[in-house]
Amino acid sequence: MKILILNGPNLNLLGTREPEIYGSQTFDEYFSELQFKFQEMELGYFQSNSEGALIDKLHMAQKEGFDAVVCNAGAFTHTSIAIGDAVAGISVPVIEVHISNVMNREEFRHVSYISKHCKGVISGFGLKSYELAINSML
Amino acid sequence: MKILILNGPNLNLLGTREPEIYGSQTFDEYFSELQFKFQEMELGYFQSNSEGALIDKLHMAQKEGFDAVVCNAGAFTHTSIAIGDAVAGISVPVIEVHISNVMNREEFRHVSYISKHCKGVISGFGLKSYELAINSML
Amino acid sequence: MKILILNGPNLNLLGTREPEIYGSQTFDEYFSELQFKFQEMELGYFQSNSEGALIDKLHMAQKEGFDAVVCNAGAFTHTSIAIGDAVAGISVPVIEVHISNVMNREEFRHVSYISKHCKGVISGFGLKSYELAINSML
Amino acid sequence: MKILILNGPNLNLLGTREPEIYGSQTFDEYFSELQFKFQEMELGYFQSNSEGALIDKLHMAQKEGFDAVVCNAGAFTHTSIAIGDAVAGISVPVIEVHISNVMNREEFRHVSYISKHCKGVISGFGLKSYELAINSML
Amino acid sequence: MKILILNGPNLNLLGTREPEIYGSQTFDEYFSELQFKFQEMELGYFQSNSEGALIDKLHMAQKEGFDAVVCNAGAFTHTSIAIGDAVAGISVPVIEVHISNVMNREEFRHVSYISKHCKGVISGFGLKSYELAINSML
Amino acid sequence: MKILILNGPNLNLLGTREPEIYGSQTFDEYFSELQFKFQEMELGYFQSNSEGALIDKLHMAQKEGFDAVVCNAGAFTHTSIAIGDAVAGISVPVIEVHISNVMNREEFRHVSYISKHCKGVISGFGLKSYELAINSML
Amino acid sequence: MKILILNGPNLNLLGTREPEIYGSQTFDEYFSELQFKFQEMELGYFQSNSEGALIDKLHMAQKEGFDAVVCNAGAFTHTSIAIGDAVAGISVPVIEVHISNVMNREEFRHVSYISKHCKGVISGFGLKSYELAINSML
Amino acid sequence: MKILILNGPNLNLLGTREPEIYGSQTFDEYFSELQFKFQEMELGYFQSNSEGALIDKLHMAQKEGFDAVVCNAGAFTHTSIAIGDAVAGISVPVIEVHISNVMNREEFRHVSYISKHCKGVISGFGLKSYELAINSML
Amino acid sequence: MKILILNGPNLNLLGTREPEIYGSQTFDEYFSELQFKFQEMELGYFQSNSEGALIDKLHMAQKEGFDAVVCNAGAFTHTSIAIGDAVAGISVPVIEVHISNVMNREEFRHVSYISKHCKGVISGFGLKSYELAINSML
Amino acid sequence: MKILILNGPNLNLLGTREPEIYGSQTFDEYFSELQFKFQEMELGYFQSNSEGALIDKLHMAQKEGFDAVVCNAGAFTHTSIAIGDAVAGISVPVIEVHISNVMNREEFRHVSYISKHCKGVISGFGLKSYELAINSML
Amino acid sequence: MKILILNGPNLNLLGTREPEIYGSQTFDEYFSELQFKFQEMELGYFQSNSEGALIDKLHMAQKEGFDAVVCNAGAFTHTSIAIGDAVAGISVPVIEVHISNVMNREEFRHVSYISKHCKGVISGFGLKSYELAINSML
Amino acid sequence: MKILILNGPNLNLLGTREPEIYGSQTFDEYFSELQFKFQEMELGYFQSNSEGALIDKLHMAQKEGFDAVVCNAGAFTHTSIAIGDAVAGISVPVIEVHISNVMNREEFRHVSYISKHCKGVISGFGLKSYELAINSML
Repeated sequence: MKILILNGPNLNLLGTREPEIYGSQTFDEYFSELQFKFQEMELGYFQSNSEGALIDKLHMAQKEGFDAVVCNAGAFTHTSIAIGDAVAGISVPVIEVHISNVMNREEFRHVSYISKHCKGVISGFGLKSYELAINSML
Repeated sequence: MKILILNGPNLNLLGTREPEIYGSQTFDEYFSELQFKFQEMELGYFQSNSEGALIDKLHMAQKEGFDAVVCNAGAFTHTSIAIGDAVAGISVPVIEVHISNVMNREEFRHVSYISKHCKGVISGFGLKSYELAINSML
Repeated sequence: MKILILNGPNLNLLGTREPEIYGSQTFDEYFSELQFKFQEMELGYFQSNSEGALIDKLHMAQKEGFDAVVCNAGAFTHTSIAIGDAVAGISVPVIEVHISNVMNREEFRHVSYISKHCKGVISGFGLKSYELAINSML
Repeated sequence: MKILILNGPNLNLLGTREPEIYGSQTFDEYFSELQFKFQEMELGYFQSNSEGALIDKLHMAQKEGFDAVVCNAGAFTHTSIAIGDAVAGISVPVIEVHISNVMNREEFRHVSYISKHCKGVISGFGLKSYELAINSML
Repeated sequence: MKILILNGPNLNLLGTREPEIYGSQTFDEYFSELQFKFQEMELGYFQSNSEGALIDKLHMAQKEGFDAVVCNAGAFTHTSIAIGDAVAGISVPVIEVHISNVMNREEFRHVSYISKHCKGVISGFGLKSYELAINSML
Repeated sequence: MKILILNGPNLNLLGTREPEIYGSQTFDEYFSELQFKFQEMELGYFQSNSEGALIDKLHMAQKEGFDAVVCNAGAFTHTSIAIGDAVAGISVPVIEVHISNVMNREEFRHVSYISKHCKGVISGFGLKSYELAINSML
Repeated sequence: MKILILNGPNLNLLGTREPEIYGSQTFDEYFSELQFKFQEMELGYFQSNSEGALIDKLHMAQKEGFDAVVCNAGAFTHTSIAIGDAVAGISVPVIEVHISNVMNREEFRHVSYISKHCKGVISGFGLKSYELAINSML
Repeated sequence: MKILILNGPNLNLLGTREPEIYGSQTFDEYFSELQFKFQEMELGYFQSNSEGALIDKLHMAQKEGFDAVVCNAGAFTHTSIAIGDAVAGISVPVIEVHISNVMNREEFRHVSYISKHCKGVISGFGLKSYELAINSML
Repeated sequence: MKILILNGPNLNLLGTREPEIYGSQTFDEYFSELQFKFQEMELGYFQSNSEGALIDKLHMAQKEGFDAVVCNAGAFTHTSIAIGDAVAGISVPVIEVHISNVMNREEFRHVSYISKHCKGVISGFGLKSYELAINSML
Repeated sequence: MKILILNGPNLNLLGTREPEIYGSQTFDEYFSELQFKFQEMELGYFQSNSEGALIDKLHMAQKEGFDAVVCNAGAFTHTSIAIGDAVAGISVPVIEVHISNVMNREEFRHVSYISKHCKGVISGFGLKSYELAINSML
Repeated sequence: MKILILNGPNLNLLGTREPEIYGSQTFDEYFSELQFKFQEMELGYFQSNSEGALIDKLHMAQKEGFDAVVCNAGAFTHTSIAIGDAVAGISVPVIEVHISNVMNREEFRHVSYISKHCKGVISGFGLKSYELAINSML
Repeated sequence: MKILILNGPNLNLLGTREPEIYGSQTFDEYFSELQFKFQEMELGYFQSNSEGALIDKLHMAQKEGFDAVVCNAGAFTHTSIAIGDAVAGISVPVIEVHISNVMNREEFRHVSYISKHCKGVISGFGLKSYELAINSML
């Protein structure tokens, strides 16, 4: 099984931004842990601050043979109809994840243009949200 | 570890309503499967169509020593400030689950008075949403 | 033919509340008249101020062999997604009735979470709304 | 007793439009059935696609001695303050009917400028809505 | 003079929830103080997390000869048209109270379906709000 | 000077509808009074319940040599973009009048699609509004 | 007959502000013209940029024996509930006037807290609006 | 091929209204040009300021054997659910056209009750919009 | 203890306006009663129709040594962010009172810019609201 | 004549996504057809999933000597003020096209930040929309 | 160069209110610093809690020969159309300043009736906002 | 001191677009002037039409040792939650600038997702806004 983890804008700051709050673990370190935990799987990882690059990667997920995408579109979740259309336009199932509980943040983060096209949504469990998303594919 | 599964209105119809869509498995049967899968845990289960009974049960969860509540408040999710207050008022962590992807249904189901007080939210994975919620506590 | 009349919150006050306006006839008296008028039918009657009890009764209507439910959910009409889901979840047809013309009252009474799942809606004819609803099943 | 049935825009298409859905019965045929069923009554019938013609007819209903109007204003229900004012401006009681369940259609059909001035509203029972409306006058 | 104090959902948690904030006084203890302070009065007390039970109790207040109801409907204040109708439907005057200043909390708590049917509203004085409400009847 | 008085829907009911409120004077009688009062002017009068007929008449006002139109579009004021466009499309100045104070009625009557294209608006002075409108042209 | 003309904020700038648009006539000059035209009347005039001073003057209008107030509250029309309450609180009739056609300006000028308490509204006729308002009292 | 051009309110003013802006070409002249350009087609033309007449004509389009309707409903586009229903109720395809770019005008012109039932929409190309609509049928 | 009663716009009309409704008691008379009832306290009283004067007085309350302000800002309650800021900007506690039940009046009176900065709110008890506010300080 | 066709996000999926619905023709194939049909023209083509790249290309259209741009901004139509500004900022005329009838899709697709700056809009004619847009330049 | 600094409601509290947050510097002290820093300029200063007084001062700014007004209208920024009109009605340029970042406060502070008539807006730089505003005139 | 000037979409068109309005000065020329004026500082400059590139640059500002960022996000100001998050996610202070007075333009430009995370906002002073922003850092 081959799963792509796709991270959107500002998620590259994890680990260096406010480490006393978010912890000092970078996503790269966490990704190594995930690879160790799910050795029977092939995990891919891509992050970009560009909406277009994320759409390109979603399109390629199918060609590259991924069985599922675990997608944290960050702030684009709330503004990007285009990413929502990309999720709807590919046949690979997408699982939406969020590190924080978005419903406990500003009201403009309660809107999602992506959720309705996803297989499911997992939010609020910190980095563990990614692991649960992978579990959901088992 | 002791976990309470709390189901809200109309979830007692599972298995008998439109079995060709929802499957013919009742929640009782699924609950047995869960108990088998998580034998090291003590799982409790309570369903009610009454908002008041659900609030009472949330209050009691603490006294009865539960470590977490996996809560599918059904339609009350979108209308009950009182259940949201109950979740906020107890110290036991609550995980919100939904069988269907609520963001892919009517717009009035996109509002939640409960999510912001929960540890996390899992929706759209069918009955598997409950299992992922229990996993999140491990 | 077996028809259940289901009344929601505050409808138990009929006949005692402001009799100079609503008349001094209680619903029980009116129900006797209905039974007399529709002797070829089996009419059932249930009233509750509890949303949960109304949902329970809707679920049971099918098991108890009712052919239709004539439902005046009162104020719950405008707030209860859960009763709407219950109506949608059973196969017994439900006819929504209102004694007063709800469109001639406060704006928050113009919203209904139940109507769309009903076979039809009859409102504004006083107690006669119930009789017309039964007629609609003939 | 003399009752006027007043039909608004596009209702002249009944019977010829999508007969596999709406049936092949035209309103004229249905009107004959109604006349047969209510032989003790004098039934009138008027249809127009013009808002002004409908208002003119409502004004004339009183002069022509009608005891009630059964009115299906069609799409004008949701846009015509002028028809609502006409209903309010005559002393003949008006009963609003709809063939389909308008609450189960687009949201702009949930608004009515007419209902509040009517004696009652009946919707969703197919052509039988008209018969129930006549019954309500007995 | 006979006054009923009616408390809605989650108010049974007072004294045990976050005692460093809300104090360690339970409502039962506070109620004893009130009885001591107003010895010339007969005070009743009822709490429920169920909307239906609160409506039932409001209906009974009249039969049981109460001269007034001091009502803190908690979260139901903002969602229950049915309780508002119950207040409107009885002749016993009702005084709405709130412990916290609801206008200083979430915006969805600024709506009240009950206030307009009450004799008056007192909010924000902590438990003293109840005492002021009783004073208002002297 | 040649002035056209243009009345919209339901204004033909004046004098016969609720005479104890609106008076028993028909608009025809009032129009005779106006002609007597403004003998140096040529006054025209047209009423219709049809939006299209009113638009046609506005278009013709120019051809027929009218110097101004005093227009009470009745309920169409609040719904007819088309009449607003007609007013904007002719070079004859139009003065909007209302018999009642529309700002003291339902909120949907506070919207006007016509006012912005008119020379001025006069409302609330009863039938005297028409006289003031003619005065404004002197 | 004694009539008070009451002008609100910024109306003191008339005549000096953009004279090529608004003309070079000050309100004082126009007021002299009005006095000349209505010699049989006693006209008073008061202008203030202060909401409180306008309310004070409305209160005093009754004591000072005015038969009517012609009031152009300027921008306060759209924001001052207090002036609206003052108009409602006195028994002297108030006529609302505006120099420009407010419905042809920004949308926030389409709201009025004053109109509903006035006898009538006249807007858009330039300074002539005041004269028409006085005419309405004859 | 037989195509009906249907024009709504105020479009009869073309050519005479503000010729320096809209040009001095009437629609009749333009229609002759169209007939010359599409000699292999049978073109029909109908204009009315009446909503009812436009609905009647849409209904007749089918009976009269038209293969398509090119419809510029003018201001009715934004207010007439009834015309939208008529378009939906006939099987002849309808193409919506506008002379001006409606999205560059007032916000109330951004709403259309007709577009969703049309085969396509063409707006902003001046009178050429009609020609493009006919081209779309080739 | 020294308490300032601060009254906003139009409250000076009490006793002279519609005495059959509001009673013929002026606020000055009521204030004398209050002084008699609370002889152990020093009560101050200030009324103004000017927003600025009320803000000035709130600022001075601290300098003049008041222990609390009982404030009925009248219509300014619903429009004045500036008074709300003044209440927030002083350390003297402010109690908001209203004579009428504002939630039973127009919707624009349901908004308050002041409540959230107050210690508590008391409304609907007639002039007794002031007395209850003073009681709350004991 | 030199025309640029500019396609936005996800339009690269045409032909491979759901071929039974959208057909198996890729945009490249369709573009060849267009080139064949308009041999007298020089057609350019650019597609990108990146908002920035589309803006860059619009800026360059002028430098590269294009006479017009036929632009299908896809989902960016509904969210990108920046692309709208780019269209407004260049002097090359832009024609907006859509393959599907956007008014017949989700409500968030009814908003366009681009239309008002375009010469015209063509939507709903499938791939033929592009051809009609080119026709509009002839 | 002669510049007027105009401060609105509650800004007189600076320096005495919460000095640990806002600092202990009064605006008078800060004004002295400004005078020292801009010795080549003539700086005026006026503060009032009264909307009317601020409008009066804006009107006088021109007569008194000021070259610019630096205006912090405080809470009136968000509610006063009248001050906005005053700014629009004078020819002296006005620069809007705010001490705090208003976009980081309550949503009702995001509305401004004044900004659009100002030369520019500077907010969030503490007292330094005033200095930057003066700089902008150099 | 090292300051980065960051310009968003379409700002590269300055100087070539409508030079009679915006002047013929390009931003590069203006930047040279700024460098000359602030010789003691190290100024950087970056422009992109891509949201992602702007986010990347904001992230890098910290690594590259900038003391502040002067950011004109152009149209992204009103749509990009992601850029707002980037500003919030870095510790370098950001000052928001706009050339035009955004509050005097379309309503959708009155929303900002960036302002609340900035140190301050300066808008409407033309290119001088940048200079004032740099001044604010001194």
